[in-house]
Amino acid sequence: MATSSESKLQLVHRHVRAFPDFPKKGILFRDICPILKDPAALTAVTDLFEEHVRKNHPQVDLIVGLDARGFLFGPLLAQRLGVGFVLVRKIGKLPGSTVSVAYDLEYGKAEVEVQEDGVAPGQKVLLIDDLLATGGTLYAACELMKKQQADILGCMVVIELKELNGIDKLKPHQVFSLLQY
Amino acid sequence: MATSSESKLQLVHRHVRAFPDFPKKGILFRDICPILKDPAALTAVTDLFEEHVRKNHPQVDLIVGLDARGFLFGPLLAQRLGVGFVLVRKIGKLPGSTVSVAYDLEYGKAEVEVQEDGVAPGQKVLLIDDLLATGGTLYAACELMKKQQADILGCMVVIELKELNGIDKLKPHQVFSLLQY
Repeated sequence: MATSSESKLQLVHRHVRAFPDFPKKGILFRDICPILKDPAALTAVTDLFEEHVRKNHPQVDLIVGLDARGFLFGPLLAQRLGVGFVLVRKIGKLPGSTVSVAYDLEYGKAEVEVQEDGVAPGQKVLLIDDLLATGGTLYAACELMKKQQADILGCMVVIELKELNGIDKLKPHQVFSLLQY
Repeated sequence: MATSSESKLQLVHRHVRAFPDFPKKGILFRDICPILKDPAALTAVTDLFEEHVRKNHPQVDLIVGLDARGFLFGPLLAQRLGVGFVLVRKIGKLPGSTVSVAYDLEYGKAEVEVQEDGVAPGQKVLLIDDLLATGGTLYAACELMKKQQADILGCMVVIELKELNGIDKLKPHQVFSLLQY
């Protein structure tokens, strides 16, 4: 619930929890579940994303969301804007013709893919996820969009973990975040 | 896009594709990605779910969505209803105290979990996913809700694959589906 004096951003901030040592020792995990559980906080997230897009990227054609927590926020934003939502998934989950990009994790590799007919050349896309850490997955998703010759307008996240420098990894693409830690 | 004469259900139906032999030989995969890509079709899905809930379960407290495609539809419905959304995730993804339930897959086992403070005893919940096949994951999610002493009002899916009899597995809980194949 919102109190009368707080801003949308304060409302969102109040619904992010921190858990030390998850998923492993030394990591401080930022948990966005309380945002989803509070209708006013989730509305505030969508409002803030929508305001940013209408002001800076009114020409957007598609919102592209990352598996799985990008799926929580992307369709809400896409519906507000009246545009489509496209899924970037972990490998092996999407039927039909797909294009994929592999990327390095701390240990081993991961791979993301998109349906070939998900994004057409020249379409203006905004990528969305819950959180920007090192930027590996968003970087791979941008590479996917480049393979499809999409026009990347930028990336959007609820939370940016500044010390991990994901912003630099994603250059020249811009990242808009609601909260920075 | 909707044509002037078609119903919301026809619009949704027109945006489901079938892919033979995915993810393996003999499986006909129903793909809901085109629904997400078409703003009118996604609005129609949310409209139809909302109408069902307002008519049959106006007392609902929470929408509980399954990782990952339940995340695409659940927050939209929860926002329409003005209630919270709670995530049921594959094991290891949620921080803090969680409760989990293991279930059998065709080969091996899987496990889902929810945050302990996600659902309180007595809260009235509706579970949502994209598709009901054998019902294994939804069954496990219902067991999770029972562990939390939630009051399960029912399950909702976009698509029910009738020949796999997931409906029977989920009894006595009712399943509402938009499309049946």
